[in-house]
Amino acid sequence: MGQKIVKVMFIGDVVGNPGLKMVDLLLKNFIKKYSVDFVICNGENAHNGKGMSLESLNQLLEAGVQVVTGGNHTWSNFNFFETLKTHPQVLRPQNYPKGTYGKGYGIYKIPGGLGDIAVINLQGRTFMYPIDCPFRTADWVIKQLKDQVRYIFVDIHAEATAEKIALGWYLDGRVSAVIGTHTHVQTADERILPKGTGYCTDVGMTGPQTSVIGMQIKSAVDRMLYQTPHKYECAEDDVHFSAVVVTFEAEKGKTVAIERIFYPEFDRGMS
Amino acid sequence: MGQKIVKVMFIGDVVGNPGLKMVDLLLKNFIKKYSVDFVICNGENAHNGKGMSLESLNQLLEAGVQVVTGGNHTWSNFNFFETLKTHPQVLRPQNYPKGTYGKGYGIYKIPGGLGDIAVINLQGRTFMYPIDCPFRTADWVIKQLKDQVRYIFVDIHAEATAEKIALGWYLDGRVSAVIGTHTHVQTADERILPKGTGYCTDVGMTGPQTSVIGMQIKSAVDRMLYQTPHKYECAEDDVHFSAVVVTFEAEKGKTVAIERIFYPEFDRGMS
Amino acid sequence: MGQKIVKVMFIGDVVGNPGLKMVDLLLKNFIKKYSVDFVICNGENAHNGKGMSLESLNQLLEAGVQVVTGGNHTWSNFNFFETLKTHPQVLRPQNYPKGTYGKGYGIYKIPGGLGDIAVINLQGRTFMYPIDCPFRTADWVIKQLKDQVRYIFVDIHAEATAEKIALGWYLDGRVSAVIGTHTHVQTADERILPKGTGYCTDVGMTGPQTSVIGMQIKSAVDRMLYQTPHKYECAEDDVHFSAVVVTFEAEKGKTVAIERIFYPEFDRGMS
Amino acid sequence: MGQKIVKVMFIGDVVGNPGLKMVDLLLKNFIKKYSVDFVICNGENAHNGKGMSLESLNQLLEAGVQVVTGGNHTWSNFNFFETLKTHPQVLRPQNYPKGTYGKGYGIYKIPGGLGDIAVINLQGRTFMYPIDCPFRTADWVIKQLKDQVRYIFVDIHAEATAEKIALGWYLDGRVSAVIGTHTHVQTADERILPKGTGYCTDVGMTGPQTSVIGMQIKSAVDRMLYQTPHKYECAEDDVHFSAVVVTFEAEKGKTVAIERIFYPEFDRGMS
Ligand SMILES: [Fe+2]
Ligand SMILES: [Fe+2]
Ligand SMILES: [Fe+2]
Ligand SMILES: [Fe+2]
Ligand SMILES: [Fe+2]
Ligand SMILES: [Fe+2]
Ligand SMILES: [Fe+2]
Ligand SMILES: [Fe+2]
Repeated sequence: MGQKIVKVMFIGDVVGNPGLKMVDLLLKNFIKKYSVDFVICNGENAHNGKGMSLESLNQLLEAGVQVVTGGNHTWSNFNFFETLKTHPQVLRPQNYPKGTYGKGYGIYKIPGGLGDIAVINLQGRTFMYPIDCPFRTADWVIKQLKDQVRYIFVDIHAEATAEKIALGWYLDGRVSAVIGTHTHVQTADERILPKGTGYCTDVGMTGPQTSVIGMQIKSAVDRMLYQTPHKYECAEDDVHFSAVVVTFEAEKGKTVAIERIFYPEFDRGMS
Repeated sequence: MGQKIVKVMFIGDVVGNPGLKMVDLLLKNFIKKYSVDFVICNGENAHNGKGMSLESLNQLLEAGVQVVTGGNHTWSNFNFFETLKTHPQVLRPQNYPKGTYGKGYGIYKIPGGLGDIAVINLQGRTFMYPIDCPFRTADWVIKQLKDQVRYIFVDIHAEATAEKIALGWYLDGRVSAVIGTHTHVQTADERILPKGTGYCTDVGMTGPQTSVIGMQIKSAVDRMLYQTPHKYECAEDDVHFSAVVVTFEAEKGKTVAIERIFYPEFDRGMS
Repeated sequence: MGQKIVKVMFIGDVVGNPGLKMVDLLLKNFIKKYSVDFVICNGENAHNGKGMSLESLNQLLEAGVQVVTGGNHTWSNFNFFETLKTHPQVLRPQNYPKGTYGKGYGIYKIPGGLGDIAVINLQGRTFMYPIDCPFRTADWVIKQLKDQVRYIFVDIHAEATAEKIALGWYLDGRVSAVIGTHTHVQTADERILPKGTGYCTDVGMTGPQTSVIGMQIKSAVDRMLYQTPHKYECAEDDVHFSAVVVTFEAEKGKTVAIERIFYPEFDRGMS
Repeated sequence: MGQKIVKVMFIGDVVGNPGLKMVDLLLKNFIKKYSVDFVICNGENAHNGKGMSLESLNQLLEAGVQVVTGGNHTWSNFNFFETLKTHPQVLRPQNYPKGTYGKGYGIYKIPGGLGDIAVINLQGRTFMYPIDCPFRTADWVIKQLKDQVRYIFVDIHAEATAEKIALGWYLDGRVSAVIGTHTHVQTADERILPKGTGYCTDVGMTGPQTSVIGMQIKSAVDRMLYQTPHKYECAEDDVHFSAVVVTFEAEKGKTVAIERIFYPEFDRGMS
């Protein structure tokens, strides 16, 4: 009798070399520990905190990641645009307008003969760019996928909690999981929605936490104090690993368990 | 010998009557369970999801809350503005410009002779309104408070994670805790910063969770699908209680423990 | 020998009763003075400064307007939504998503047997709402219109000058005119683009000029000083009429003349 | 008997080398033609369209400009920040927070013994950055200037028409003129407000008009079509000169005449 579940790990925004090293260091252990079958990772900040590069993509793939999703920062490194066309393992949000480099969803084989999984990368618009509607784009992709896959994983890269939550309800029962990225802070609202879709507003960042969402503290504070440009420099210290593991049942592809990972834990004292 | 610690509970954005009832129902038990000495609550959505009213303020005070903070929605109900002047238990963000109704910080007695605590309410500006600088306003208030209080609690009501985290670092070692509100989603990043300030990006909402941050799902999704106005209607179902409990040591007022509360827990299945 | 030209007047955002009265008072004279064949008017602020009503629509039509365009404020009055469906003389921006009330373009007969004119209402997205792309929507509408009309008039309701100008260049040679609304200030850049499209960034407001874009000065200034809500009240004094007259040649529908009207003139002293 | 008036020319956002050359070519003739006593120029886009440089500053000064104001793009060229400290002829918006490089107002001698003029550079916040309040900053500067100067000229660099107009009314009778910049499109609303302040929402750009506010058309359109970064490249063709000339009477410094200049005129055909 075959395996009845599939476990997917989704790693949140990997920031710069500190984040890449952390993934390289820990991922294989986590895969074993959590019996993970498939790994997805948001990489929009992998290249020094801004965008991706072929090198950072390769590092993630070698570390054990199968699919790398993106976001608004995917466009920060012009040199990466060609790679978006040539490498099916890397996605950018699907709801960028037709004519944009690369693609926003793909169907991938889960190792071990566990079937196929579709990964969809979407981006929100509230406080971000007026690209195509993520809700209708999701409808369209799901229609394309019809009957081809049992498992559908959605990375919703967005700023506003309301937009992510609305998408979760909108897709409940139609996809396996809707997990958010972009804010670089892990939220504690992981849950299984009533019709079986796993949901979490944000996975959080895999990167240096003595920072302001990955950036050196002084520059980040100065930007706010003076509202003038201050050079982005990737922070380096106190690197943590942020991820979510979702367990899908094999019959309908619904989420039967969702678990957050944040490692190592922050100092919370003792009450 | 006297008590060496003070425990403060901070309840996140209470939404409408469902949220108010939840506070009324659970707060006294939580106070006992966690040995809480002082309760602060963000109430900007208490009046049907939009602003406050004298009635909702009284309900919170009767339920056991000592100080009610606000945010951008404080201004949603014109009828409440006078109450801002007459009731020292209610605050609005201090960094609204001089000339605005009400005040944004206060000094309060902790019951049981445990000394005084200052509560400061601040609001972010990223993706919000261009009010006064929350960083410099914090500096100014802290200077006013000099030597008057041992404990200083900051509610930073803001949208962007970067702005809240930056304020946390900016105030580390100068206040007892910096806890965020406004996004209505609890974050999992509660921690004690290196110099002793308790920090959490967002406490999350105390209100109906079968909703989009408290609003009925259909209206909220329609707003995003059509980008036209759809009447705000407060949701009602699946009410949860969101809070953070911070423990301050009595000598310097630093945080020695920080703990999130989300009750009841969401369905997360079993891995 | 037939008439070789068609003259279209486009009146900018009519604000409240003061604006409606001004149109009623002056339009027929202006039509005569400028030999106008067809009148279009942006009415998004006709109903007390916020949205439209059936009554204000009728007032505009009776005053001599043939088509009334809209904008973001079209949605400010819920009671008007049905009228959007029943009255083909009123448009709302076409690039609101499918499923929105009303329509955003129409074909209308020019009185005097001068042929048909299409009017397209579009809305920008920069600093506004993330609706469908106005550029691609224009492409789509133009395709629908193919060979049905000689004259195409576009009202681009937008905030950012860059977005309006970009649309002007994008449509140059494909439509008769691209004229902007929404900022309530008339711009002095009316021109004929190289391929024959008439262009002006904004027609300006037809309404009370002792105001802040139609609103009473004190409330408007207080909104900026305090960043809190202050009741919108329509101003009343110093009403001016703002319009543009474009002259199209009859063969290809290109603009051969463009002229701004602002009446009465402001006091500019004497140099 | 001495001269009873002072004439000030204000040149709108000079864009790149095309704009600089235009100023060099035409300014001296315009000074003669309009009997201009003092020239102010917004230079935030002088350095290849983005920020300023010492070289572009010198070119403007040599061409006959006395004071160069700035805006949000002042910060686009890091190399210029030192010059902000060393050259009193260059200003940046005064309402950037304390601690920012440079200053935002100055008192300057009008050649010919015509007395002193203060120039104040302010920046709006709507759709821009949450810097200090431009209204209150204006109050503060005017207080500093008390009795030192007869003429006060304000460059309000802002996006929203409402914010500029509100500032005009707010300062009416307290300064000689409030003239806007930043949108790069000249507005036709130049006027003398009731208490004697000259006002115009935007002077417009001195730069290449076969462009989108100075940028090459294709890149600008692509930015809007795809919402991804496209390299800013300064356009080159069809350069126009945009300015306003205000005439102040010598007793109280009020505006007695205001005139727009846009040279050469656009093609407007013949009605
Ligand atoms: Fe990111
Ligand atoms: Fe992002
Ligand atoms: Fe709230
Ligand atoms: Fe809020
Ligand atoms: Fe309008
Ligand atoms: Fe509008
Ligand atoms: Fe500019
Ligand atoms: Fe600017």
